[in-house]
Amino acid sequence: MTYSKLNISTPSLIINKNNLLSNINKMNNFSKKNKINIRPHSKSHKMIKIAKTQLKYGACGICVATLYEAEKMVENKIKGVLLTTPITNIKDKVRLKNLFKLSDSFMIVIDNIYSINFLSNIVKPLRKKINVLVDCDIMYIGKNKISRTGARSIKEIISLAKIINQNKYMNFRGITAYAGDIQHINNYNKRSNEAKVRYNYLKNIIISLKNNNLDPEIISGGGTGSHELDAKSKLFTELQPGSYIFNDVEYNNVSIYKSNNKHFSPALIIGTSVISRINKKQYVVDAGLKAISADSNLMPLPIEPTPIGTKYSFLGDEHGKITLPKSSKIELSLGDKVYIQPAHCDPTINLYDKCLILDENKSIKTWNIDARGYG
Amino acid sequence: MTYSKLNISTPSLIINKNNLLSNINKMNNFSKKNKINIRPHSKSHKMIKIAKTQLKYGACGICVATLYEAEKMVENKIKGVLLTTPITNIKDKVRLKNLFKLSDSFMIVIDNIYSINFLSNIVKPLRKKINVLVDCDIMYIGKNKISRTGARSIKEIISLAKIINQNKYMNFRGITAYAGDIQHINNYNKRSNEAKVRYNYLKNIIISLKNNNLDPEIISGGGTGSHELDAKSKLFTELQPGSYIFNDVEYNNVSIYKSNNKHFSPALIIGTSVISRINKKQYVVDAGLKAISADSNLMPLPIEPTPIGTKYSFLGDEHGKITLPKSSKIELSLGDKVYIQPAHCDPTINLYDKCLILDENKSIKTWNIDARGYG
Repeated sequence: MTYSKLNISTPSLIINKNNLLSNINKMNNFSKKNKINIRPHSKSHKMIKIAKTQLKYGACGICVATLYEAEKMVENKIKGVLLTTPITNIKDKVRLKNLFKLSDSFMIVIDNIYSINFLSNIVKPLRKKINVLVDCDIMYIGKNKISRTGARSIKEIISLAKIINQNKYMNFRGITAYAGDIQHINNYNKRSNEAKVRYNYLKNIIISLKNNNLDPEIISGGGTGSHELDAKSKLFTELQPGSYIFNDVEYNNVSIYKSNNKHFSPALIIGTSVISRINKKQYVVDAGLKAISADSNLMPLPIEPTPIGTKYSFLGDEHGKITLPKSSKIELSLGDKVYIQPAHCDPTINLYDKCLILDENKSIKTWNIDARGYG
Repeated sequence: MTYSKLNISTPSLIINKNNLLSNINKMNNFSKKNKINIRPHSKSHKMIKIAKTQLKYGACGICVATLYEAEKMVENKIKGVLLTTPITNIKDKVRLKNLFKLSDSFMIVIDNIYSINFLSNIVKPLRKKINVLVDCDIMYIGKNKISRTGARSIKEIISLAKIINQNKYMNFRGITAYAGDIQHINNYNKRSNEAKVRYNYLKNIIISLKNNNLDPEIISGGGTGSHELDAKSKLFTELQPGSYIFNDVEYNNVSIYKSNNKHFSPALIIGTSVISRINKKQYVVDAGLKAISADSNLMPLPIEPTPIGTKYSFLGDEHGKITLPKSSKIELSLGDKVYIQPAHCDPTINLYDKCLILDENKSIKTWNIDARGYG
């Protein structure tokens, strides 16, 4: 499939539906083959239609990162929503209470006694038990000592699990343990070595929980970059990959599989127009910092029909520069479209309210990015 | 005014209305004193209510960067909308035609013969003359040889102005000349020296136009960082500042005035919550790459009530880290709010659908970011 000469306004976010479905299908096959559940992280896409497609293709539920994502998913009858971020803001008590009211399968993580008390107060008047998991920080024990969220010692994890287990308004369902910092270690062996450190620690957490009669029914973690290693570790009951549905320039460079097999296909593309010509080799397009996230060390990548070796660089809030390779025999014209794969998919999709779904037959539909914006 | 203990969901975009109005007022006074028009750039805010406030405070019109911004402004009866980006995409002809139909004061720039033909075809059936300005690239002649949009020689500029002037569907209204690359040269004298190179070139452009009986009625350009220099140059009829209404960490560092006087006040703040505690000095908040734009070399800056010296760093898509200074005697608690000034205001506001307007009396209203999203 080529994108050339699509009749669209620019800049536009385009999802290549074939590649999207192929990626979802690939992860589903992996899940079946390795007998491990997949609860994909919807923070990558924030879209009801994609969440429903993931469930249809065998996902056991959907992860969310924000309260607003949780609300959108639950309102739209998505089952098994897991909120992977602790909520601590007093203002949000009513919103959380409503989520517990609306869904029996909704789950939330905590990493502190504060959050247990916070939840306990919310849930008392509801007369039902809510599903709680203990978030375990397995990033801090890595080489870079990055901490994000999560309880930070086995002692603390056991203590929190016990308190949840004894609370009459809470079901202790298990734990989450996500190593975000290893997902983008490009080399398979280096990533594997770094992952092993986390798995050893996670194994000890699980043994300690079992020894305390707190056998975790759910052990959730992992991501696109580590999913093969995570499955091999036999520690997780489910994985939370997000970016696999789109892939991006950052993941292009990650050797995800030991076999070095091709992994996922580019399904997320920004459509731009040439709005100014600098010279034969350099052109200005209408997509800058507001159309493609610039947080990555890697650059967004122009794809076909521009020749291999074409480069994109940021020219400010509204503009980007396209540089054709020296060897290029073609030139671009004003009004020409240039299609660009973002370096980092999650914050890029977050820039748009809607996206264009490009089907095999080149029909274009519009889907909303339902859960973008609003904290 | 302090932000402490606002009852808001997080992450949230907050506009401090006092500071916003004080900044708008300051630019209005500058405009009067220097007898130069201000046509503020709404790409910074994308909000109808702010555009209307700018007009109320004396602006002669509003600049827009995208077709969607133009549509939102024109639909809402904003007069004197100037689209500062050339439009070249065939798909957008209908949208542009509609804009010319709806507004007699709408103006657009071109930098190429392609765009003149493109516009000419749109406007023929409308039986009215549209307002066209020639965009002149005054960035390329600077030290960094950055080109964005704009015709790139006096010869080309004269040629385009002539063609517009002879076209029976077009009014040649003048030129635009924006030096985006000098706005953030922090030192006043260095910025002034770099600006002079552009002014000399711009002066020659204007003389050549006059010599060709193409006297430009409008000479539009300048920005927040250069507006004092631009006014002093006596070349422009109007300026296009955008970021002055919010200020940000990048502009904190720019010595805008020769007098070294204080310039604009921080009016744009991200409200976050502490969701995890790493240790006494380090905390995780719920605002990452999707809540604060990460394109700047500078870091977002925590403001009161956290102590001076508190630092923010990105911890990924959804998380940020707050580090208290070593000397700090206070600690943070889970659920505490931390308020952060973004490093770069324009792409940060673009991340939100709406913002909270905080008044002196601490009442909170919600305003839509009307023109965000959609190319």
